[in-house]
Amino acid sequence: MRLVTFGVANSLDNFIARPDGAVDWLVWDEEVAKISGEFFKTVDTVVMGRKTYEVAAKSGGGAYPGVKNYVCSRTLKKAPKQIEIVSEDAVDFIRRLKQEAGKGICIVGGGELARSLFEARLIDQVGLNIQPVMLGSGIPLFYEMNLQQDLELLECKALKNGGLYVFYRMKLTSLQGS
Amino acid sequence: MRLVTFGVANSLDNFIARPDGAVDWLVWDEEVAKISGEFFKTVDTVVMGRKTYEVAAKSGGGAYPGVKNYVCSRTLKKAPKQIEIVSEDAVDFIRRLKQEAGKGICIVGGGELARSLFEARLIDQVGLNIQPVMLGSGIPLFYEMNLQQDLELLECKALKNGGLYVFYRMKLTSLQGS
Repeated sequence: MRLVTFGVANSLDNFIARPDGAVDWLVWDEEVAKISGEFFKTVDTVVMGRKTYEVAAKSGGGAYPGVKNYVCSRTLKKAPKQIEIVSEDAVDFIRRLKQEAGKGICIVGGGELARSLFEARLIDQVGLNIQPVMLGSGIPLFYEMNLQQDLELLECKALKNGGLYVFYRMKLTSLQGS
Repeated sequence: MRLVTFGVANSLDNFIARPDGAVDWLVWDEEVAKISGEFFKTVDTVVMGRKTYEVAAKSGGGAYPGVKNYVCSRTLKKAPKQIEIVSEDAVDFIRRLKQEAGKGICIVGGGELARSLFEARLIDQVGLNIQPVMLGSGIPLFYEMNLQQDLELLECKALKNGGLYVFYRMKLTSLQGS
């Protein structure tokens, strides 16, 4: 079964963006690009929520290069041809996608999308680039969830830019048939 | 001026306790005791909020040994003789305490107490023992705040028990006269 990784950059105080979606506070440099590049070798599919997609699209991005891109949304009608809109239930979609042949699946941004996937135990790994800032307010990284997840810390690294990269494996996921 | 450190153990998803205050998920071992012991050499004062104190008191604790203990509360009337109740505004109290002679001051537990001190830029350092768990719900570590704080990562260490110890210095605090 394919591994599903939730990967995002966040503030120390549990936000992934300012209240208006801005991510001007994120630092991106060669070291981060290298870690990200190594990770993306293990992935052939990126899935994001509508809000994350819209913020990325506004700043000229949206689709990740070299992978299959999906945006989960019941309301989005149009997207560039590199992006496929998924209007079915995100949990059902990811559950099916996990069973197909392929490399890893990366869930980006989206605390809300991630929450439903965490609750269904469909996320196997979490990678965070914890930025050295407390934003005070914004769009949450982790929302309240109806279950506990135990984790195993696989890697942590202080980055030269002041960030902290951490990578966790979930101890109990759908891979174990729960 | 004395350094004020906010020190706490937390879940990866931004909680310091279960909804009922329980901290049964915290791992304490020799390695954590050693890090904590080294830090407490720099401190002679511990300040906690009422809720943190009451949870600690219920489990037989409450006062830290070898330091001056304060509990900030407008409602608490009685405490053991090792503990002094502070009924004045916590921000005013910490601001005054910082100016007195002495070693460092540690703020424990209390996301609510910490929030008011962060907002007044009275906290100089943050030490977290990030436990390898997502609790799903509970008492928040970081609440929304009305300002941004930039941080410098001074130390991070993967612990043998699976936890992650991080220590940050705030870039702008009352030490700089802000």
